[in-house]
Amino acid sequence: MKQIITNVRNKTPLIHCITNYVTVNDVANLLLASGGSPIMADDSLEVEEITSICNGLTINIGTLNTRTIESMLLAGKKANKLGKITVLDPVGAGASKLRTKTAFQLLDEIDFSVIRGNISEIKTLYQGSASTKGVDANISDMVTEENVSKAIELAKQLSKQTKAIIAITGAIDIVANENQVYLIRNGHPMMSKITGTGCMLSALIAAYGAANETNLLEAVVSATACVGYAGELAYKKMLELKAGTSTLRMCLIDEVSLMTDESLKEGMKVEIR
Amino acid sequence: MKQIITNVRNKTPLIHCITNYVTVNDVANLLLASGGSPIMADDSLEVEEITSICNGLTINIGTLNTRTIESMLLAGKKANKLGKITVLDPVGAGASKLRTKTAFQLLDEIDFSVIRGNISEIKTLYQGSASTKGVDANISDMVTEENVSKAIELAKQLSKQTKAIIAITGAIDIVANENQVYLIRNGHPMMSKITGTGCMLSALIAAYGAANETNLLEAVVSATACVGYAGELAYKKMLELKAGTSTLRMCLIDEVSLMTDESLKEGMKVEIR
Amino acid sequence: MKQIITNVRNKTPLIHCITNYVTVNDVANLLLASGGSPIMADDSLEVEEITSICNGLTINIGTLNTRTIESMLLAGKKANKLGKITVLDPVGAGASKLRTKTAFQLLDEIDFSVIRGNISEIKTLYQGSASTKGVDANISDMVTEENVSKAIELAKQLSKQTKAIIAITGAIDIVANENQVYLIRNGHPMMSKITGTGCMLSALIAAYGAANETNLLEAVVSATACVGYAGELAYKKMLELKAGTSTLRMCLIDEVSLMTDESLKEGMKVEIR
Repeated sequence: MKQIITNVRNKTPLIHCITNYVTVNDVANLLLASGGSPIMADDSLEVEEITSICNGLTINIGTLNTRTIESMLLAGKKANKLGKITVLDPVGAGASKLRTKTAFQLLDEIDFSVIRGNISEIKTLYQGSASTKGVDANISDMVTEENVSKAIELAKQLSKQTKAIIAITGAIDIVANENQVYLIRNGHPMMSKITGTGCMLSALIAAYGAANETNLLEAVVSATACVGYAGELAYKKMLELKAGTSTLRMCLIDEVSLMTDESLKEGMKVEIR
Repeated sequence: MKQIITNVRNKTPLIHCITNYVTVNDVANLLLASGGSPIMADDSLEVEEITSICNGLTINIGTLNTRTIESMLLAGKKANKLGKITVLDPVGAGASKLRTKTAFQLLDEIDFSVIRGNISEIKTLYQGSASTKGVDANISDMVTEENVSKAIELAKQLSKQTKAIIAITGAIDIVANENQVYLIRNGHPMMSKITGTGCMLSALIAAYGAANETNLLEAVVSATACVGYAGELAYKKMLELKAGTSTLRMCLIDEVSLMTDESLKEGMKVEIR
Repeated sequence: MKQIITNVRNKTPLIHCITNYVTVNDVANLLLASGGSPIMADDSLEVEEITSICNGLTINIGTLNTRTIESMLLAGKKANKLGKITVLDPVGAGASKLRTKTAFQLLDEIDFSVIRGNISEIKTLYQGSASTKGVDANISDMVTEENVSKAIELAKQLSKQTKAIIAITGAIDIVANENQVYLIRNGHPMMSKITGTGCMLSALIAAYGAANETNLLEAVVSATACVGYAGELAYKKMLELKAGTSTLRMCLIDEVSLMTDESLKEGMKVEIR
């Protein structure tokens, strides 16, 4: 995985983000920090054109509405037609009928390269329902060392069904396609006390993927490890400064901006299953 | 008030926020910092369902539009039906007919547990009009030690009318119901140089209230004192670092994430009137 | 230019921002940091009224949609009728037909006091097309010491056509009307690794302009130099702290909050052409 970040910094992939208005600024800044470049556009009159000039598309349903759902569908289909990398972040799938239905409609009409969600969201996509509590994973769903095999199986099955790489993120992150599985043990529990780490990761996956198209699975693993490792480093800095969660958020983006292939290689805790 | 923050951290109240896109990220991060959990959803097709899975609802009209006003009404009525705590933040009421009219419509159709605004906004709600200058309180309205009795009377009258707890925030904060009044003298003038302190407080009130339902008035007082005291601590840190207002904003959220019932008790300046 | 910042701090100009949801929080915080005051409102039912109570209007098409385009037109015409300062930030003009068409429609129906964009956006406004890559300037367009005369000519021509002051920002910033030209060599390349510097500057120009109406050209030059110089100081601080791009973003707003006419005078690198 030596070249993945270098490729992002050299190619400056432009990522079209149709994403929620809660974490959109963090998403834009993280893409820039990584070496990519963001463009946000959600009007149906322009999304196809914007996707056309981009290297990748990330669709995040965090604050979906009737108007933007139409734009998501248009942009996704265009990206498919042009062979661009597409990432789905099904925020809160399972928490409302609208979110679940929209996630399924997106899966129906668009071929996604990667789907990233927490365990409850991914369960919803596979089973059609789950006990999603808002936008966080339900505690009864949490991936632990004990039940990780079940979650791996889920990821592989959903990958088989959708042909997408599946990233289930949480205490242990799982990145899998139908046949290959990576477990990533980076990150820190305190990261759950800031909003946007998932949204940022989904966009980062699009950037890493767009700059490493022939190596997509490794790109997704690297992006996932990068955000986790950046979170660890940020947590250390937060402690040193005797600071709180807003400092953690700032330092996380800082660390992504400072990350190199070398430093990530040193810090990433990846197991091939 | 010893247990209020501990209760929030133990119960992780999930708060449905229909709020403006200016400060929404700060609102989400502050809720997480406090021990609560945010979910933002504003489409009429899902707001009732989202409110149903939440412990509280905050409605903030800071960037209202025709689409979201409908969602506010639906969510608020649902919250009332289910007996969930509801907070109204009438941002800019008085600054446009749309805002004033919407604020009154919300008051008409929804029973709010708490209404929080600056003095100009609260005057508008009580009198039907005031000299609101944008989203900040008009200088001629400012609550000072000299005119505080008038503002207290206003809070009590509006509480009588609406059955809500009223929080008027500014240099001196007033929290009152029909019969009881608290004055809070925490905070720092520099806090007016960052956006979102009011929006954050309104959401925090929902979280504190949801985790302390049998003790709602004290919860509102604590949340108000918490943001004010966090602002004081953040201001000190800003000076130490010879930094500016963006550092103040970060440190404010930091301090809420570090706040305990013990530290708040030491720092809060609350007078019972 | 001695009094320009002091005037902003004394007059607290209220700026109506119809702007994108990506950088809106930074825009609000920067306006407050500068001594101004922001109000965001984008519903067609209230924008004229909001513009009426404000001292200036900034229109930014970064995440435009059919609903907000109508509001931009209404607000702009009202501002013209009332003689208020108006700023256009044509984010991504040239990147989609919708953006290009909307920018032209705004230019057609509204007289702008100032238009600020990167070189690709400004080329689009003048020529009707350009090679805009997303929301960043195309590398082939970049203003350098070698081609700066061409860019100056472009600015003067567009100013002649529109009667607006033109600010083309990039490695070298150009501020020009039909007859006068200023080059500003403040700023740091790392500023391109955070989102929102352009949006923030456009809003700041409205605040500086509103507080210095008889001196508009100098106000635009000062605002442009202020953001650039704040970026330089922020970059130094970032290096001292061994931090990354998110720290840069925070420090930039910090530095604007600390800026005085005296410190800006010392730091600004302005050449009159």
